[in-house]
Amino acid sequence: MPLVRISHRAGADAAYRQALSDGVQEAMASTVNVPPDDRFHSLTEHAAGLIFDAHYLGIERSPDWVAIQITLRRGRTVEMKQALYRRIATNLAQNPGLRSEDILVCLVENDLADWSFGKGEAQYVR
Amino acid sequence: MPLVRISHRAGADAAYRQALSDGVQEAMASTVNVPPDDRFHSLTEHAAGLIFDAHYLGIERSPDWVAIQITLRRGRTVEMKQALYRRIATNLAQNPGLRSEDILVCLVENDLADWSFGKGEAQYVR
Amino acid sequence: MPLVRISHRAGADAAYRQALSDGVQEAMASTVNVPPDDRFHSLTEHAAGLIFDAHYLGIERSPDWVAIQITLRRGRTVEMKQALYRRIATNLAQNPGLRSEDILVCLVENDLADWSFGKGEAQYVR
Repeated sequence: MPLVRISHRAGADAAYRQALSDGVQEAMASTVNVPPDDRFHSLTEHAAGLIFDAHYLGIERSPDWVAIQITLRRGRTVEMKQALYRRIATNLAQNPGLRSEDILVCLVENDLADWSFGKGEAQYVR
Repeated sequence: MPLVRISHRAGADAAYRQALSDGVQEAMASTVNVPPDDRFHSLTEHAAGLIFDAHYLGIERSPDWVAIQITLRRGRTVEMKQALYRRIATNLAQNPGLRSEDILVCLVENDLADWSFGKGEAQYVR
Repeated sequence: MPLVRISHRAGADAAYRQALSDGVQEAMASTVNVPPDDRFHSLTEHAAGLIFDAHYLGIERSPDWVAIQITLRRGRTVEMKQALYRRIATNLAQNPGLRSEDILVCLVENDLADWSFGKGEAQYVR
């Protein structure tokens, strides 16, 4: 059920976008029990408008910085979330080759009744 | 007070966007007590970057798929949310003619103090 | 830790975007204890797709209307949030010269474990 929003630099091609999407999806499936086919991602390219601090917390960020915001239902433990962040970093380092310093992840939690996947129904409250 | 974000395919014209906005607004007004003129919608066209599963939960999605994320204050019942999803599907089927399978809705709840509608004031905590 | 999303009209230049970002960042630092260098902003220009009511609550909005959505950890008081809204309005009136009526702010709260600022780690749960 997660809805994933990814903001990334301009100049990315389809393979780059697919790698971002694949890496986040595999990480969610392997760490926080998201079904592999529960994929709903909205990626936005920013020719301008990504304005961020390149050094906050002593982490050195480059123009390749991406912001990944994941809305998902409440209930994952802190340990599961930590595993998710590690796995996203590992996956995106392999492909498309992002530095782990360039990945921000922000989670927003909601409830089962807050989702409709189509047909005008709230599938998770049946 | 809802803030509505809609991600949709490229190639949409102004009438298509207006129909999306109108359909969601009418649904919120008729099912979850949103004032008709409490409309704040941000629609984004995606020439690329909408990456989603076309079959999750047995629902067959097409390239017309839209993601509708609504941030609204806490307090609607499950039944009200179910009515909202049904009504959005009904409205958008009429205009702009979306299949109900192509509509994802995701709600995020916050509180009355989390809104300022202008003038630097938190209008709902007066 | 806030993740700030700003939706604004088309035709903005880099100075306009920087002023929006600077004004919001200074307001967060001076009212809700956000470190000045904790800046992660994603601004999106809308050539079309900002559909809003120009009169809701008796506030007269112009085409310069901006929507500012801030995701931040739980815990600010109502008074702090009110101060944040006032300060954003004051700052953006000075630069880039926005009318206070044209500024919507919407907050979404999450928890310390919901953030990773890089390196695959959840920095706030150490």
